[in-house]
Amino acid sequence: GKFGERVAEMCNRYCKVKHIQYEWGRAFDLYELEQQLERKCYEAVLICHNETSSGITQDAPAIAEMCNRYQTPFILDGITSIGGLPVDLEAWNVEAAAMGAQKCTAGPSGIAAIAFNSRFYERCKAIKEQGDINPLFYLDFVSAFKKGDDDQTPWTPAINLAMGWAAALNVLKEEGLVNRWNRCSELAQGVRNLFLDLGFELLADVSQRSATVTAILYPSGIDDNWRADLKEKYQTQVIGAQDDFKGKMFRVGSMGETTKEEMIEGCKRMLDCFREHGHNTPDVDVAGYF
Amino acid sequence: GKFGERVAEMCNRYCKVKHIQYEWGRAFDLYELEQQLERKCYEAVLICHNETSSGITQDAPAIAEMCNRYQTPFILDGITSIGGLPVDLEAWNVEAAAMGAQKCTAGPSGIAAIAFNSRFYERCKAIKEQGDINPLFYLDFVSAFKKGDDDQTPWTPAINLAMGWAAALNVLKEEGLVNRWNRCSELAQGVRNLFLDLGFELLADVSQRSATVTAILYPSGIDDNWRADLKEKYQTQVIGAQDDFKGKMFRVGSMGETTKEEMIEGCKRMLDCFREHGHNTPDVDVAGYF
Repeated sequence: GKFGERVAEMCNRYCKVKHIQYEWGRAFDLYELEQQLERKCYEAVLICHNETSSGITQDAPAIAEMCNRYQTPFILDGITSIGGLPVDLEAWNVEAAAMGAQKCTAGPSGIAAIAFNSRFYERCKAIKEQGDINPLFYLDFVSAFKKGDDDQTPWTPAINLAMGWAAALNVLKEEGLVNRWNRCSELAQGVRNLFLDLGFELLADVSQRSATVTAILYPSGIDDNWRADLKEKYQTQVIGAQDDFKGKMFRVGSMGETTKEEMIEGCKRMLDCFREHGHNTPDVDVAGYF
Repeated sequence: GKFGERVAEMCNRYCKVKHIQYEWGRAFDLYELEQQLERKCYEAVLICHNETSSGITQDAPAIAEMCNRYQTPFILDGITSIGGLPVDLEAWNVEAAAMGAQKCTAGPSGIAAIAFNSRFYERCKAIKEQGDINPLFYLDFVSAFKKGDDDQTPWTPAINLAMGWAAALNVLKEEGLVNRWNRCSELAQGVRNLFLDLGFELLADVSQRSATVTAILYPSGIDDNWRADLKEKYQTQVIGAQDDFKGKMFRVGSMGETTKEEMIEGCKRMLDCFREHGHNTPDVDVAGYF
Protein backbone atom coordinates (compact mmCIF):
# COMPACT_ATOMS: atom_id res chain seq x y z
CA GLY A 1 0.00 0.00 0.00
CA LYS A 2 0.84 3.67 0.08
CA PHE A 3 2.65 3.63 3.39
CA GLY A 4 4.85 0.69 2.51
CA GLU A 5 5.80 2.68 -0.57
CA ARG A 6 6.50 5.72 1.56
CA VAL A 7 8.71 3.71 3.90
CA ALA A 8 10.75 2.62 0.86
CA GLU A 9 10.90 6.18 -0.43
CA MET A 10 12.12 7.51 2.91
CA CYS A 11 14.77 4.83 3.31
CA ASN A 12 15.98 5.53 -0.22
CA ARG A 13 17.23 8.87 1.07
CA TYR A 14 19.69 7.18 3.38
CA CYS A 15 20.52 3.77 1.97
CA LYS A 16 20.09 1.35 -0.90
CA VAL A 17 16.62 -0.13 -0.78
CA LYS A 18 15.32 -3.33 -2.35
CA HIS A 19 11.60 -2.66 -2.42
CA ILE A 20 9.61 -5.92 -2.38
CA GLN A 21 6.52 -4.64 -4.10
CA TYR A 22 3.07 -6.16 -4.37
CA GLU A 23 -0.25 -4.84 -5.54
CA TRP A 24 -2.14 -2.80 -2.94
CA GLY A 25 -3.99 -5.06 -0.53
CA ARG A 26 -1.68 -8.05 -1.04
CA ALA A 27 0.23 -9.41 1.96
CA PHE A 28 3.91 -10.35 1.76
CA ASP A 29 4.63 -13.68 0.13
CA LEU A 30 6.49 -15.17 3.08
CA TYR A 31 8.15 -17.76 0.89
CA GLU A 32 9.57 -15.06 -1.41
CA LEU A 33 10.66 -13.03 1.60
CA GLU A 34 12.45 -16.04 3.07
CA GLN A 35 14.29 -16.65 -0.20
CA GLN A 36 15.49 -13.06 -0.09
CA LEU A 37 16.58 -13.33 3.53
CA GLU A 38 18.35 -16.59 2.88
CA ARG A 39 20.78 -14.76 0.64
CA LYS A 40 21.72 -12.66 3.69
CA CYS A 41 22.39 -9.64 1.54
CA TYR A 42 20.23 -7.28 3.58
CA GLU A 43 21.39 -5.09 6.40
CA ALA A 44 17.84 -4.90 7.75
CA VAL A 45 14.21 -5.62 6.86
CA LEU A 46 11.65 -2.87 7.36
CA ILE A 47 7.91 -3.38 6.98
CA CYS A 48 4.85 -1.20 7.27
CA HIS A 49 3.07 -3.44 9.76
CA ASN A 50 -0.47 -2.19 9.23
CA GLU A 51 -1.37 -0.51 5.97
CA THR A 52 -4.28 1.93 6.28
CA SER A 53 -4.30 2.64 2.55
CA SER A 54 -5.39 -0.90 1.74
CA GLY A 55 -6.59 -2.31 5.07
CA ILE A 56 -3.96 -4.99 5.42
CA THR A 57 -1.90 -6.18 8.40
CA GLN A 58 1.35 -7.94 7.55
CA ASP A 59 2.22 -11.11 9.42
CA ALA A 60 4.78 -9.46 11.68
CA PRO A 61 5.35 -12.45 14.02
CA ALA A 62 6.23 -14.70 11.05
CA ILE A 63 8.48 -12.06 9.47
CA ALA A 64 10.15 -11.43 12.84
CA GLU A 65 10.82 -15.15 13.27
CA MET A 66 12.39 -15.29 9.81
CA CYS A 67 14.52 -12.21 10.37
CA ASN A 68 15.79 -13.68 13.62
CA ARG A 69 16.50 -17.00 11.97
CA TYR A 70 18.58 -15.30 9.29
CA GLN A 71 20.09 -12.80 11.75
CA THR A 72 18.73 -9.78 9.93
CA PRO A 73 17.54 -6.83 12.04
CA PHE A 74 13.79 -6.31 11.82
CA ILE A 75 12.43 -2.73 11.81
CA LEU A 76 8.75 -1.96 12.22
CA ASP A 77 6.65 0.94 10.99
CA GLY A 78 4.01 0.50 13.67
CA ILE A 79 2.26 3.83 13.07
CA THR A 80 -1.21 2.26 12.82
CA SER A 81 -0.59 -0.98 14.66
CA ILE A 82 1.07 -0.20 17.99
CA GLY A 83 -1.70 0.32 20.55
CA GLY A 84 -4.39 -1.17 18.31
CA LEU A 85 -3.07 -4.59 17.31
CA PRO A 86 -1.02 -7.19 19.17
CA VAL A 87 2.60 -6.02 18.90
CA ASP A 88 5.36 -7.50 21.00
CA LEU A 89 8.58 -5.70 20.17
CA GLU A 90 10.59 -7.70 22.69
CA ALA A 91 9.36 -11.16 21.69
CA TRP A 92 9.88 -10.29 18.04
CA ASN A 93 13.36 -8.95 18.82
CA VAL A 94 12.54 -5.79 16.89
CA GLU A 95 15.55 -3.57 16.20
CA ALA A 96 13.52 -0.35 16.02
CA ALA A 97 9.87 0.65 15.75
CA ALA A 98 7.98 3.90 15.17
CA MET A 99 4.42 4.97 15.97
CA GLY A 100 2.29 8.12 15.82
CA ALA A 101 0.22 9.39 18.76
CA GLN A 102 -2.80 10.27 16.65
CA LYS A 103 -3.52 6.75 15.43
CA CYS A 104 -4.22 3.76 17.70
CA THR A 105 -3.62 5.66 20.94
CA ALA A 106 -6.02 8.50 19.98
CA GLY A 107 -3.53 11.16 21.10
CA PRO A 108 -2.89 14.54 19.50
CA SER A 109 -1.39 14.66 16.03
CA GLY A 110 2.14 16.01 15.68
CA ILE A 111 3.92 13.74 18.14
CA ALA A 112 5.47 10.33 17.57
CA ALA A 113 7.56 7.79 19.45
CA ILE A 114 10.33 5.44 18.50
CA ALA A 115 11.62 2.42 20.36
CA PHE A 116 14.89 0.66 19.65
CA ASN A 117 17.03 -2.04 21.19
CA SER A 118 20.47 -1.59 22.69
CA ARG A 119 22.19 -3.04 19.59
CA PHE A 120 20.72 -0.25 17.47
CA TYR A 121 21.66 2.38 20.04
CA GLU A 122 25.22 1.13 20.34
CA ARG A 123 25.51 1.27 16.59
CA CYS A 124 24.25 4.89 16.47
CA LYS A 125 26.75 5.79 19.18
CA ALA A 126 29.63 4.10 17.36
CA ILE A 127 28.74 5.90 14.12
CA LYS A 128 28.62 9.22 15.97
CA GLU A 129 31.93 8.56 17.70
CA GLN A 130 33.54 7.75 14.37
CA GLY A 131 32.58 11.28 13.35
CA ASP A 132 30.14 10.11 10.69
CA ILE A 133 27.43 12.66 10.27
CA ASN A 134 23.71 12.13 10.86
CA PRO A 135 21.95 14.78 8.79
CA LEU A 136 19.04 14.86 11.24
CA PHE A 137 20.43 17.18 13.87
CA TYR A 138 17.29 17.16 16.01
CA LEU A 139 16.80 13.39 15.75
CA ASP A 140 20.04 12.43 17.40
CA PHE A 141 19.35 9.39 19.59
CA VAL A 142 22.62 9.76 21.46
CA SER A 143 21.76 13.31 22.61
CA ALA A 144 18.21 12.25 23.41
CA PHE A 145 19.42 9.36 25.53
CA LYS A 146 21.90 11.49 27.42
CA LYS A 147 19.23 14.05 28.32
CA GLY A 148 16.65 11.36 28.92
CA ASP A 149 18.63 10.21 31.93
CA ASP A 150 17.71 13.56 33.54
CA ASP A 151 14.08 13.22 32.44
CA GLN A 152 14.68 15.93 29.89
CA THR A 153 14.77 16.35 26.12
CA PRO A 154 17.83 17.80 24.38
CA TRP A 155 15.72 20.39 22.53
CA THR A 156 12.58 22.37 23.36
CA PRO A 157 9.81 19.74 23.53
CA ALA A 158 6.24 20.09 22.28
CA ILE A 159 5.11 19.90 25.89
CA ASN A 160 1.39 20.47 25.20
CA LEU A 161 1.34 17.51 22.86
CA ALA A 162 3.27 15.37 25.31
CA MET A 163 0.74 16.14 28.03
CA GLY A 164 -2.16 15.51 25.66
CA TRP A 165 -0.66 12.18 24.71
CA ALA A 166 -0.09 11.23 28.34
CA ALA A 167 -3.80 11.81 28.95
CA ALA A 168 -4.72 9.61 25.96
CA LEU A 169 -2.35 6.90 27.16
CA ASN A 170 -4.03 6.96 30.56
CA VAL A 171 -7.37 6.32 28.86
CA LEU A 172 -5.75 3.35 27.09
CA LYS A 173 -4.30 2.10 30.37
CA GLU A 174 -7.73 2.24 32.00
CA GLU A 175 -9.28 0.27 29.15
CA GLY A 176 -6.36 -2.19 29.18
CA LEU A 177 -4.18 -2.88 26.17
CA VAL A 178 -5.62 -6.33 25.47
CA ASN A 179 -9.17 -5.02 25.83
CA ARG A 180 -8.34 -2.33 23.30
CA TRP A 181 -6.90 -4.84 20.86
CA ASN A 182 -10.05 -6.92 21.24
CA ARG A 183 -12.37 -3.96 20.78
CA CYS A 184 -10.55 -2.85 17.58
CA SER A 185 -10.68 -6.40 16.30
CA GLU A 186 -14.40 -6.83 17.08
CA LEU A 187 -15.28 -3.51 15.46
CA ALA A 188 -13.32 -4.36 12.30
CA GLN A 189 -14.81 -7.83 12.17
CA GLY A 190 -18.31 -6.36 12.42
CA VAL A 191 -17.62 -3.88 9.62
CA ARG A 192 -16.12 -6.61 7.42
CA ASN A 193 -18.96 -9.08 7.97
CA LEU A 194 -21.66 -6.47 7.56
CA PHE A 195 -20.37 -5.11 4.26
CA LEU A 196 -19.53 -8.56 2.88
CA ASP A 197 -23.08 -9.69 3.67
CA LEU A 198 -24.37 -6.61 1.88
CA GLY A 199 -22.46 -7.65 -1.23
CA PHE A 200 -19.53 -5.23 -1.02
CA GLU A 201 -15.97 -6.35 -1.73
CA LEU A 202 -12.96 -5.75 0.47
CA LEU A 203 -9.57 -4.87 -0.96
CA ALA A 204 -7.29 -6.71 1.46
CA ASP A 205 -6.15 -10.33 1.30
CA VAL A 206 -8.57 -12.49 3.29
CA SER A 207 -6.02 -13.85 5.73
CA GLN A 208 -4.42 -10.49 6.58
CA ARG A 209 -7.25 -8.03 7.00
CA SER A 210 -6.51 -5.18 9.38
CA ALA A 211 -8.28 -4.72 12.71
CA THR A 212 -7.72 -0.96 12.75
CA VAL A 213 -9.03 -0.06 9.30
CA THR A 214 -11.24 -1.71 6.68
CA ALA A 215 -10.93 -0.80 3.00
CA ILE A 216 -14.25 -1.34 1.17
CA LEU A 217 -14.60 -1.12 -2.62
CA TYR A 218 -17.52 0.91 -3.99
CA PRO A 219 -20.24 -1.09 -5.69
CA SER A 220 -20.62 -0.09 -9.32
CA GLY A 221 -22.67 3.06 -9.81
CA ILE A 222 -21.52 4.78 -6.63
CA ASP A 223 -18.83 7.40 -6.71
CA ASP A 224 -16.98 9.40 -4.08
CA ASN A 225 -19.72 12.08 -3.89
CA TRP A 226 -21.41 9.67 -1.56
CA ARG A 227 -18.87 10.61 1.08
CA ALA A 228 -19.71 14.32 0.83
CA ASP A 229 -23.41 13.54 1.37
CA LEU A 230 -22.59 11.26 4.28
CA LYS A 231 -20.63 14.08 5.87
CA GLU A 232 -23.17 16.84 5.18
CA LYS A 233 -26.51 15.11 5.64
CA TYR A 234 -25.58 12.28 7.97
CA GLN A 235 -22.86 14.03 9.95
CA THR A 236 -20.65 11.00 9.56
CA GLN A 237 -17.21 10.80 8.07
CA VAL A 238 -15.47 7.91 6.39
CA ILE A 239 -12.12 8.25 4.68
CA GLY A 240 -11.64 8.17 0.92
CA ALA A 241 -8.85 6.29 -0.80
CA GLN A 242 -5.43 7.39 -1.99
CA ASP A 243 -3.59 7.42 -5.29
CA ASP A 244 -4.95 4.89 -7.82
CA PHE A 245 -7.83 3.89 -5.57
CA LYS A 246 -9.19 7.43 -5.23
CA GLY A 247 -12.92 7.32 -5.89
CA LYS A 248 -13.00 3.51 -6.04
CA MET A 249 -12.96 2.76 -2.35
CA PHE A 250 -13.71 4.11 1.12
CA ARG A 251 -12.15 3.21 4.43
CA VAL A 252 -13.63 2.76 7.89
CA GLY A 253 -11.31 3.19 10.84
CA SER A 254 -11.73 1.08 13.98
CA MET A 255 -8.75 2.28 16.01
CA GLY A 256 -8.35 4.55 19.02
CA GLU A 257 -11.39 5.31 21.14
CA THR A 258 -14.20 4.43 18.70
CA THR A 259 -16.98 2.74 20.68
CA LYS A 260 -19.26 -0.09 19.60
CA GLU A 261 -22.27 2.23 19.78
CA GLU A 262 -20.55 4.81 17.61
CA MET A 263 -19.65 2.19 15.03
CA ILE A 264 -23.19 0.78 14.90
CA GLU A 265 -24.66 4.26 14.46
CA GLY A 266 -22.05 5.10 11.80
CA CYS A 267 -22.77 1.92 9.84
CA LYS A 268 -26.54 2.58 9.96
CA ARG A 269 -25.98 6.03 8.53
CA MET A 270 -23.69 4.65 5.82
CA LEU A 271 -26.40 2.19 4.76
CA ASP A 272 -29.06 4.93 4.73
CA CYS A 273 -26.81 7.10 2.62
CA PHE A 274 -26.05 4.26 0.20
CA ARG A 275 -29.79 3.64 -0.22
CA GLU A 276 -30.32 7.32 -0.93
CA HIS A 277 -27.68 7.00 -3.62
CA GLY A 278 -29.63 4.18 -5.28
CA HIS A 279 -27.66 1.26 -3.91
CA ASN A 280 -30.44 -0.85 -2.41
CA THR A 281 -28.83 -2.90 0.30
CA PRO A 282 -30.92 -5.55 2.07
CA ASP A 283 -32.42 -4.67 5.43
CA VAL A 284 -30.11 -6.15 8.06
CA ASP A 285 -29.77 -5.93 11.83
CA VAL A 286 -26.64 -3.74 11.94
CA ALA A 287 -26.27 -3.92 15.71
CA GLY A 288 -26.20 -7.70 15.54
CA TYR A 289 -22.86 -7.57 13.74
CA PHE A 290 -21.09 -5.97 16.70
CA GLY B 1 26.82 32.60 21.59
CA LYS B 2 25.47 29.10 21.94
CA PHE B 3 22.86 29.37 19.21
CA GLY B 4 25.25 30.80 16.64
CA GLU B 5 27.45 27.81 17.43
CA ARG B 6 24.49 25.49 16.99
CA VAL B 7 23.63 27.05 13.64
CA ALA B 8 27.19 26.32 12.49
CA GLU B 9 26.98 22.78 13.85
CA MET B 10 23.72 22.10 12.03
CA CYS B 11 24.95 23.50 8.72
CA ASN B 12 28.08 21.40 9.02
CA ARG B 13 25.87 18.36 8.46
CA TYR B 14 24.96 19.54 4.98
CA CYS B 15 27.72 21.78 3.71
CA LYS B 16 31.16 23.22 4.32
CA VAL B 17 30.94 25.91 6.96
CA LYS B 18 33.33 28.75 7.69
CA HIS B 19 32.37 29.62 11.24
CA ILE B 20 33.22 33.25 12.04
CA GLN B 21 33.61 32.85 15.74
CA TYR B 22 33.77 35.48 18.48
CA GLU B 23 33.64 35.30 22.22
CA TRP B 24 30.12 35.03 23.66
CA GLY B 25 28.46 38.42 23.83
CA ARG B 26 30.57 39.97 21.05
CA ALA B 27 28.80 41.26 17.94
CA PHE B 28 30.08 40.57 14.43
CA ASP B 29 33.00 42.72 13.36
CA LEU B 30 31.31 44.13 10.27
CA TYR B 31 34.64 45.09 8.76
CA GLU B 32 35.91 41.53 9.03
CA LEU B 33 32.63 40.18 7.66
CA GLU B 34 32.86 42.52 4.69
CA GLN B 35 36.41 41.39 3.94
CA GLN B 36 35.15 37.81 3.89
CA LEU B 37 32.24 38.67 1.63
CA GLU B 38 34.46 40.63 -0.71
CA ARG B 39 36.24 37.41 -1.59
CA LYS B 40 32.89 36.10 -2.84
CA CYS B 41 33.73 32.58 -1.78
CA TYR B 42 30.55 31.98 0.18
CA GLU B 43 27.40 30.42 -1.17
CA ALA B 44 25.40 32.06 1.62
CA VAL B 45 25.74 33.86 4.96
CA LEU B 46 23.70 32.62 7.90
CA ILE B 47 23.48 34.43 11.21
CA CYS B 48 21.75 33.84 14.51
CA HIS B 49 20.03 37.22 14.61
CA ASN B 50 19.29 37.39 18.32
CA GLU B 51 21.37 35.35 20.71
CA THR B 52 19.56 34.47 23.93
CA SER B 53 22.61 32.76 25.41
CA SER B 54 24.50 36.04 25.60
CA GLY B 55 21.84 38.72 25.14
CA ILE B 56 23.11 40.11 21.87
CA THR B 57 21.32 41.19 18.70
CA GLN B 58 23.42 41.18 15.54
CA ASP B 59 23.18 44.16 13.19
CA ALA B 60 21.02 42.35 10.65
CA PRO B 61 20.21 45.39 8.46
CA ALA B 62 23.93 46.17 7.99
CA ILE B 63 24.78 42.51 7.29
CA ALA B 64 21.83 42.28 4.87
CA GLU B 65 23.04 45.36 3.02
CA MET B 66 26.53 43.88 2.73
CA CYS B 67 25.24 40.50 1.55
CA ASN B 68 23.15 42.21 -1.10
CA ARG B 69 26.08 44.36 -2.19
CA TYR B 70 28.23 41.26 -2.64
CA GLN B 71 25.36 39.20 -4.05
CA THR B 72 25.53 36.60 -1.33
CA PRO B 73 22.23 35.10 -0.11
CA PHE B 74 21.46 36.07 3.49
CA ILE B 75 19.81 33.51 5.76
CA LEU B 76 18.40 34.42 9.14
CA ASP B 77 17.93 32.35 12.29
CA GLY B 78 15.16 34.57 13.64
CA ILE B 79 14.03 32.20 16.40
CA THR B 80 14.18 34.86 19.11
CA SER B 81 13.94 37.98 16.97
CA ILE B 82 10.97 37.60 14.61
CA GLY B 83 7.92 39.02 16.39
CA GLY B 84 9.95 40.72 19.12
CA LEU B 85 12.48 42.87 17.24
CA PRO B 86 12.24 44.86 14.02
CA VAL B 87 12.76 42.32 11.23
CA ASP B 88 12.02 43.13 7.60
CA LEU B 89 12.70 40.04 5.55
CA GLU B 90 11.63 41.73 2.33
CA ALA B 91 13.63 44.93 2.72
CA TRP B 92 16.67 42.90 3.73
CA ASN B 93 16.14 40.58 0.76
CA VAL B 94 16.47 37.60 3.07
CA GLU B 95 16.83 34.28 1.27
CA ALA B 96 15.32 32.22 4.10
CA ALA B 97 14.42 32.72 7.75
CA ALA B 98 13.29 30.48 10.60
CA MET B 99 11.43 31.19 13.84
CA GLY B 100 9.91 29.25 16.75
CA ALA B 101 6.35 29.81 17.98
CA GLN B 102 7.28 29.63 21.65
CA LYS B 103 9.62 32.63 21.65
CA CYS B 104 8.62 36.18 20.63
CA THR B 105 5.08 35.25 19.60
CA ALA B 106 4.35 33.44 22.90
CA GLY B 107 2.80 30.46 21.11
CA PRO B 108 3.03 26.78 22.06
CA SER B 109 6.40 25.05 21.90
CA GLY B 110 6.91 22.39 19.25
CA ILE B 111 5.95 24.39 16.17
CA ALA B 112 8.10 26.58 13.96
CA ALA B 113 7.85 28.51 10.72
CA ILE B 114 10.18 29.17 7.85
CA ALA B 115 9.96 31.84 5.18
CA PHE B 116 11.93 31.88 1.96
CA ASN B 117 12.05 33.82 -1.26
CA SER B 118 11.21 32.50 -4.71
CA ARG B 119 14.89 32.19 -5.67
CA PHE B 120 15.43 29.72 -2.82
CA TYR B 121 12.28 27.80 -3.72
CA GLU B 122 13.22 27.56 -7.40
CA ARG B 123 16.59 26.22 -6.36
CA CYS B 124 15.03 23.56 -4.10
CA LYS B 125 12.76 22.57 -6.99
CA ALA B 126 15.64 22.36 -9.46
CA ILE B 127 17.66 20.22 -7.05
CA LYS B 128 14.67 17.91 -6.57
CA GLU B 129 14.06 17.66 -10.31
CA GLN B 130 17.69 16.76 -10.87
CA GLY B 131 17.02 13.78 -8.63
CA ASP B 132 19.37 15.00 -5.91
CA ILE B 133 18.19 13.70 -2.60
CA ASN B 134 17.11 15.81 0.37
CA PRO B 135 17.60 13.61 3.44
CA LEU B 136 14.77 15.42 5.23
CA PHE B 137 11.76 13.62 3.79
CA TYR B 138 9.22 15.50 5.88
CA LEU B 139 10.83 18.90 5.30
CA ASP B 140 10.38 18.95 1.56
CA PHE B 141 9.48 22.51 0.57
CA VAL B 142 8.32 21.44 -2.87
CA SER B 143 5.71 19.03 -1.44
CA ALA B 144 4.69 21.59 1.17
CA PHE B 145 4.17 24.25 -1.47
CA LYS B 146 2.13 21.99 -3.68
CA LYS B 147 -0.21 21.06 -0.82
CA GLY B 148 -0.20 24.60 0.50
CA ASP B 149 -2.07 25.70 -2.61
CA ASP B 150 -5.02 23.65 -1.32
CA ASP B 151 -4.63 25.04 2.20
CA GLN B 152 -3.28 21.69 3.31
CA THR B 153 -0.06 20.18 4.57
CA PRO B 154 1.55 17.20 2.83
CA TRP B 155 1.77 15.24 6.08
CA THR B 156 -0.39 15.01 9.21
CA PRO B 157 -0.05 18.42 10.87
CA ALA B 158 0.22 19.18 14.59
CA ILE B 159 -3.17 20.81 14.35
CA ASN B 160 -3.55 21.59 18.09
CA LEU B 161 -0.29 23.51 18.03
CA ALA B 162 -1.25 25.34 14.85
CA MET B 163 -4.52 26.47 16.45
CA GLY B 164 -2.73 27.47 19.64
CA TRP B 165 -0.26 29.49 17.64
CA ALA B 166 -3.03 31.16 15.63
CA ALA B 167 -4.56 32.29 18.94
CA ALA B 168 -1.20 33.69 20.09
CA LEU B 169 -0.72 35.48 16.76
CA ASN B 170 -4.14 37.08 17.16
CA VAL B 171 -3.02 38.45 20.52
CA LEU B 172 0.05 39.88 18.76
CA LYS B 173 -2.11 41.34 16.00
CA GLU B 174 -4.32 43.06 18.57
CA GLU B 175 -1.32 44.56 20.31
CA GLY B 176 0.21 45.55 16.97
CA LEU B 177 3.62 44.39 15.79
CA VAL B 178 5.33 47.76 16.29
CA ASN B 179 3.77 48.14 19.73
CA ARG B 180 5.14 44.74 20.63
CA TRP B 181 8.61 45.64 19.40
CA ASN B 182 8.44 48.81 21.48
CA ARG B 183 7.23 47.01 24.59
CA CYS B 184 10.02 44.42 24.35
CA SER B 185 12.54 47.18 23.83
CA GLU B 186 11.26 49.26 26.77
CA LEU B 187 11.24 46.26 29.09
CA ALA B 188 14.80 45.29 28.13
CA GLN B 189 15.99 48.88 28.45
CA GLY B 190 14.47 49.06 31.94
CA VAL B 191 16.15 45.81 33.01
CA ARG B 192 19.50 46.96 31.60
CA ASN B 193 19.41 50.41 33.20
CA LEU B 194 18.19 49.08 36.53
CA PHE B 195 20.89 46.43 36.88
CA LEU B 196 23.65 48.69 35.54
CA ASP B 197 22.67 51.33 38.11
CA LEU B 198 22.79 48.64 40.78
CA GLY B 199 26.36 47.88 39.80
CA PHE B 200 25.84 44.67 37.84
CA GLU B 201 27.64 44.00 34.57
CA LEU B 202 26.02 42.92 31.33
CA LEU B 203 27.65 40.40 29.04
CA ALA B 204 26.67 41.77 25.63
CA ASP B 205 28.45 44.43 23.60
CA VAL B 206 27.04 47.87 24.44
CA SER B 207 25.88 48.71 20.94
CA GLN B 208 24.13 45.41 20.23
CA ARG B 209 22.22 44.52 23.37
CA SER B 210 19.11 42.45 22.77
CA ALA B 211 15.59 43.72 23.38
CA THR B 212 14.19 40.25 24.01
CA VAL B 213 16.66 38.98 26.59
CA THR B 214 19.22 40.51 28.95
CA ALA B 215 22.22 38.55 30.16
CA ILE B 216 23.40 39.79 33.57
CA LEU B 217 26.65 38.65 35.21
CA TYR B 218 26.47 37.64 38.88
CA PRO B 219 28.23 39.97 41.28
CA SER B 220 31.02 38.19 43.11
CA GLY B 221 29.81 36.13 46.05
CA ILE B 222 26.51 35.11 44.47
CA ASP B 223 26.09 31.73 42.89
CA ASP B 224 23.32 30.02 40.96
CA ASN B 225 21.57 28.83 44.14
CA TRP B 226 20.07 32.29 44.17
CA ARG B 227 17.84 31.23 41.31
CA ALA B 228 16.45 28.27 43.24
CA ASP B 229 15.54 30.58 46.13
CA LEU B 230 13.98 33.08 43.76
CA LYS B 231 11.83 30.32 42.34
CA GLU B 232 10.87 28.74 45.67
CA LYS B 233 10.48 31.72 47.99
CA TYR B 234 9.66 34.48 45.52
CA GLN B 235 7.74 32.44 42.96
CA THR B 236 9.74 34.08 40.21
CA GLN B 237 11.84 32.43 37.56
CA VAL B 238 14.85 33.77 35.72
CA ILE B 239 16.91 31.66 33.37
CA GLY B 240 20.41 30.43 34.15
CA ALA B 241 23.26 30.45 31.68
CA GLN B 242 24.58 27.77 29.34
CA ASP B 243 27.91 26.06 28.80
CA ASP B 244 30.91 28.06 30.11
CA PHE B 245 28.72 30.73 31.63
CA LYS B 246 26.73 28.29 33.77
CA GLY B 247 26.60 29.68 37.30
CA LYS B 248 28.21 32.98 36.30
CA MET B 249 25.22 34.70 34.82
CA PHE B 250 21.42 34.84 34.74
CA ARG B 251 19.12 35.94 31.99
CA VAL B 252 15.89 37.95 32.02
CA GLY B 253 13.55 37.51 29.08
CA SER B 254 11.48 40.42 27.78
CA MET B 255 9.78 38.76 24.83
CA GLY B 256 6.28 37.55 24.13
CA GLU B 257 3.46 38.71 26.37
CA THR B 258 5.43 39.85 29.43
CA THR B 259 3.77 43.01 30.75
CA LYS B 260 5.39 46.07 32.30
CA GLU B 261 3.71 45.30 35.62
CA GLU B 262 4.98 41.74 35.58
CA MET B 263 8.51 42.91 34.83
CA ILE B 264 8.47 45.53 37.62
CA GLU B 265 7.20 42.97 40.13
CA GLY B 266 9.77 40.43 38.93
CA CYS B 267 12.65 42.90 39.29
CA LYS B 268 11.53 43.86 42.81
CA ARG B 269 11.55 40.22 43.82
CA MET B 270 14.98 39.73 42.26
CA LEU B 271 16.35 42.63 44.29
CA ASP B 272 14.78 41.31 47.48
CA CYS B 273 16.26 37.90 46.82
CA PHE B 274 19.70 39.36 46.10
CA ARG B 275 19.54 41.28 49.40
CA GLU B 276 18.65 38.09 51.20
CA HIS B 277 21.73 36.51 49.64
CA GLY B 278 23.92 39.26 51.09
CA HIS B 279 24.26 41.41 47.99
CA ASN B 280 23.16 44.77 49.33
CA THR B 281 21.84 46.73 46.40
CA PRO B 282 20.90 50.40 46.87
CA ASP B 283 17.22 51.21 47.36
CA VAL B 284 15.94 52.32 43.98
CA ASP B 285 12.54 53.09 42.48
CA VAL B 286 12.21 49.97 40.32
CA ALA B 287 8.95 51.08 38.68
CA GLY B 288 10.63 54.29 37.53
CA TYR B 289 12.85 52.32 35.19
CA PHE B 290 9.93 51.08 33.09
